[in-house]
Amino acid sequence: MTNAQPRYVYLGPEGTFTEAALRRVPGTEGADCEPVGSVITALAQVRSGDADFAVVPIENSVEGGVTATLDDIASDDNLQIMREILVPISFVLVAPSPRELDQIRTLATHTHAWAQVRNWAAAHLPQAEFIPANSTAGAARGLLEPATQYDAAVCAPLVASQTGLTVLASAIEDTPGAVTRFVLVSRPGPVPAPTGSDKTTVVVPLPDDHPGALMDILDQFSTRGINLSRIESRPTGTGLGSYFFSIDFEGHVAEERVKAALAALYRMIPGIRFLGSYPRADQLKYTVPAHTRDAAYRAGQEWVNAIINR
Amino acid sequence: MTNAQPRYVYLGPEGTFTEAALRRVPGTEGADCEPVGSVITALAQVRSGDADFAVVPIENSVEGGVTATLDDIASDDNLQIMREILVPISFVLVAPSPRELDQIRTLATHTHAWAQVRNWAAAHLPQAEFIPANSTAGAARGLLEPATQYDAAVCAPLVASQTGLTVLASAIEDTPGAVTRFVLVSRPGPVPAPTGSDKTTVVVPLPDDHPGALMDILDQFSTRGINLSRIESRPTGTGLGSYFFSIDFEGHVAEERVKAALAALYRMIPGIRFLGSYPRADQLKYTVPAHTRDAAYRAGQEWVNAIINR
Amino acid sequence: MTNAQPRYVYLGPEGTFTEAALRRVPGTEGADCEPVGSVITALAQVRSGDADFAVVPIENSVEGGVTATLDDIASDDNLQIMREILVPISFVLVAPSPRELDQIRTLATHTHAWAQVRNWAAAHLPQAEFIPANSTAGAARGLLEPATQYDAAVCAPLVASQTGLTVLASAIEDTPGAVTRFVLVSRPGPVPAPTGSDKTTVVVPLPDDHPGALMDILDQFSTRGINLSRIESRPTGTGLGSYFFSIDFEGHVAEERVKAALAALYRMIPGIRFLGSYPRADQLKYTVPAHTRDAAYRAGQEWVNAIINR
Amino acid sequence: MTNAQPRYVYLGPEGTFTEAALRRVPGTEGADCEPVGSVITALAQVRSGDADFAVVPIENSVEGGVTATLDDIASDDNLQIMREILVPISFVLVAPSPRELDQIRTLATHTHAWAQVRNWAAAHLPQAEFIPANSTAGAARGLLEPATQYDAAVCAPLVASQTGLTVLASAIEDTPGAVTRFVLVSRPGPVPAPTGSDKTTVVVPLPDDHPGALMDILDQFSTRGINLSRIESRPTGTGLGSYFFSIDFEGHVAEERVKAALAALYRMIPGIRFLGSYPRADQLKYTVPAHTRDAAYRAGQEWVNAIINR
Repeated sequence: MTNAQPRYVYLGPEGTFTEAALRRVPGTEGADCEPVGSVITALAQVRSGDADFAVVPIENSVEGGVTATLDDIASDDNLQIMREILVPISFVLVAPSPRELDQIRTLATHTHAWAQVRNWAAAHLPQAEFIPANSTAGAARGLLEPATQYDAAVCAPLVASQTGLTVLASAIEDTPGAVTRFVLVSRPGPVPAPTGSDKTTVVVPLPDDHPGALMDILDQFSTRGINLSRIESRPTGTGLGSYFFSIDFEGHVAEERVKAALAALYRMIPGIRFLGSYPRADQLKYTVPAHTRDAAYRAGQEWVNAIINR
Repeated sequence: MTNAQPRYVYLGPEGTFTEAALRRVPGTEGADCEPVGSVITALAQVRSGDADFAVVPIENSVEGGVTATLDDIASDDNLQIMREILVPISFVLVAPSPRELDQIRTLATHTHAWAQVRNWAAAHLPQAEFIPANSTAGAARGLLEPATQYDAAVCAPLVASQTGLTVLASAIEDTPGAVTRFVLVSRPGPVPAPTGSDKTTVVVPLPDDHPGALMDILDQFSTRGINLSRIESRPTGTGLGSYFFSIDFEGHVAEERVKAALAALYRMIPGIRFLGSYPRADQLKYTVPAHTRDAAYRAGQEWVNAIINR
Repeated sequence: MTNAQPRYVYLGPEGTFTEAALRRVPGTEGADCEPVGSVITALAQVRSGDADFAVVPIENSVEGGVTATLDDIASDDNLQIMREILVPISFVLVAPSPRELDQIRTLATHTHAWAQVRNWAAAHLPQAEFIPANSTAGAARGLLEPATQYDAAVCAPLVASQTGLTVLASAIEDTPGAVTRFVLVSRPGPVPAPTGSDKTTVVVPLPDDHPGALMDILDQFSTRGINLSRIESRPTGTGLGSYFFSIDFEGHVAEERVKAALAALYRMIPGIRFLGSYPRADQLKYTVPAHTRDAAYRAGQEWVNAIINR
Repeated sequence: MTNAQPRYVYLGPEGTFTEAALRRVPGTEGADCEPVGSVITALAQVRSGDADFAVVPIENSVEGGVTATLDDIASDDNLQIMREILVPISFVLVAPSPRELDQIRTLATHTHAWAQVRNWAAAHLPQAEFIPANSTAGAARGLLEPATQYDAAVCAPLVASQTGLTVLASAIEDTPGAVTRFVLVSRPGPVPAPTGSDKTTVVVPLPDDHPGALMDILDQFSTRGINLSRIESRPTGTGLGSYFFSIDFEGHVAEERVKAALAALYRMIPGIRFLGSYPRADQLKYTVPAHTRDAAYRAGQEWVNAIINR
């Protein structure tokens, strides 16, 4: 799909942290942005061309979808991460009208949000039963329905303001300072230019019955002075002991040491998938050892070539 | 709690694969066995002494609970894995009465089970909507309730036979041969004696902002000829980039190379947790390089001691 | 110097194992071949163009010159190893005329030859004093001089036959089956074509006060599946703890994994010197892991290039 | 031999740098000290009990004997290094009487000394021929003999003053600041107590045809945070490609990380030899990573023992 105006989809419903992430992407103001029901649907629309971009959570989300994102994005070569977006996470407790906390018997939210307010809830709502919901925004909006079967919801501040629900408590997250990481995904295309503060994401299947192979994988990074910033295992779904690793590392595929590391990994594990090189959201600069900078790589190759061309 | 008859709890409801796992533990016939509502509850009862043992899924479960198990069991030093149990996984499609597949509009099961029959469902029930349920057994039993809001369920064969529901299709799993791994957990106590075919489970927090440290961790195993059989990352819940690794490896804590590796890990990462050494369910023997066998360790220590005592 | 007929020099005098090595080089029959007094002289003549080729011992020689060869050849970029030659080593005891072993009071030979017959001499000539000579051939020929000051000599069988000296005992080496390795050295030029059974020699200075750096050096080989066949340290002569390593490894500079390893070493240690890729004298084939063969390297580079050129 | 007064032997003749090293050993003033003709003789007298201690050069000597020392000391388990001694090296050019440098046609010294003044000689005595001598002191004293066949000698300043020879030039070494390292050797006995600034010397045979094994050896040090201060290869004399490595590293055998590394090496290569732990002559303190200090080792072992004794 190539139309004048790109179309964005995101993990809905409206008012979640994912929508907040989308709004931070330059060029989305006034753009065609639509919430969809699941990460899988969002990514499928990009794959099929129904959408140009999807915004989905990839790390530490309160809305779920993280493992769905890791798994689905890793399942073929038809998607590419173009950008990462960090969104601070804070929760409020809402109800249709003002009430005392000890009147709340049932409380709905997404399981992941629940995990992040559990201690607060145990302290302030010891009597309340948790009702799982498909999203924090859905839980909040459900309170407005006549047939609602719970008393309160935990959601993002944005939804509270959009719906007019009463905020009974705010900043109730157990761990202040939490952040969720989202990614902007498109079909494969030109990799964003290196900025000097980039990240690359790959997916590396671990050979069955050989978890020790992980060391060989990691060695390809360390021997080239490349730092990892995230490494997560995911089951492939084909049996016990079958995993792939989702890895973020510092650097850009246009940099020589990254090219060398990726080529080395490909030689060992041809099933490796490149999911994107893109600017770090935090713009932190990383330090590369002198002997693994591009100039050093070029000097080394020139030296060898001079020998071969004697 | 030390009474004449030990009390077992397991992730319910009755009729799930977890109960099947429990029934494979010697000594549980006629024992006091009770289903509980969640992995967390099961483990909490063991911690508190209300139960002596819990059986919970730990790898590739269709009933969920795997990440709950990994996370909860890793959260303190008050639990120990005493045994692992492998259960083959196969699914049936059930309904209250015989009907054609194209009449099924809605279908309930646990999300993880759904993930394992999705392709079959896409091919045979393309029109059916998936309704998430708390368990496969619960989904099946829900069909017997007057107010049931779905047409069919995917569950374990055992539940079908217990309930008398009609089996519309069997062995519908997308990947035949699947197995789920369960563990028998108790409060810390004497480690089961080495059998020559053992596994050890540890939990190793990865130092924040230093994913490269994983390599140092793995090196402690490989330098001592110890094979890993499972390695999974889990977020600690304290922020982006904060993980722990749950690791199974071949060997028993009473073996010298394992003692050395564990002591080395403890020196590097004092937050490491030992979760148990226990016989492998598959009783496969592993081969240890001659130079890392107990006799070699003892010979090395004797040689050094002789020098010191000159 | 480029004349119709190439000129060879070798470590003399005539009749030593080095001459035997030279005679095994194709094209030396009837060629201009001259013995010179030292390895340093031989190599200097090649550097200056006075000779085209030098044959000198490089490993386990009985004539000395091994460390001289390692050191001198490593001292600049003006020499290249074109070929290796293996010569079996066996010794005879000679005297001007027949006599009993117990009449021999003094015995001359090169120190390295002495080292290889010491046990035999201790058993059969316990009363004999060792007199160091500049070469085994020189020791033998010295017996023919009127003013000779020793009774017998240890030398190569060839010299005995050339001189007509009496052989009192033969095959007197303590370790049967010894072999010395020689190299054919020229000024730098086109590297001999790969044969599938090649060796490469490099010289790598070890950073001062950082002997641990040796591990980083070795890692560049092992991570690319390259076996070492020789590694020797030599002092650089600039102080305690200052070494270089002379390394032979399996493979040819035209092979991708070797190019990659050399380029990596150059990045780390720009003082590395390439001394040659040449056919193995024993023509043994080595096995390269599939993932480090040329085809794998090319596939890896193509994969990365395809990403960059999206 | 245990007599009231210990007997010292050293690599003679009198007046060499080795005697200077001996004189730096506390307790040798007025002791029974005797020069012997070779390193091998010196060490043999200690082995047999004829002497209690030997002082021999071990690194970068100008008097030769270094490889003899490395090889002989490594050849059995009957010797132990008790102390290292560093001696600064400087040379003088001597003759029987004053003369111009351009009158010197022949010049005697030990080969190793020659190697250290070669550039100076090439610049100032281009016409002079080098005559190898058994020692620098011997070369100097030879000038006093009626039948001397050379014009000048290169030797240590001490010999010049002892003999009254004329110093034609001093500090003629090509590389100022050179130091030679000597060791005090005894029969095996109690290891000197740790001082916090110690060195340990071991000899590790490299498995034949497996030079890559060197990496596994080095890994045992690096994984325990132990720095190497010297690593040298030596041929075993049993054939091409057969080496042992002589290694000095920071630390004392009574320290836990050293005990662990040595025991690990012994497991891999039972032919390893321990040659001694002794104070560093330079008394430099080394830094040990916190996780490899003795306290950390003990904590790790206690943690594992607590598990086993549950």
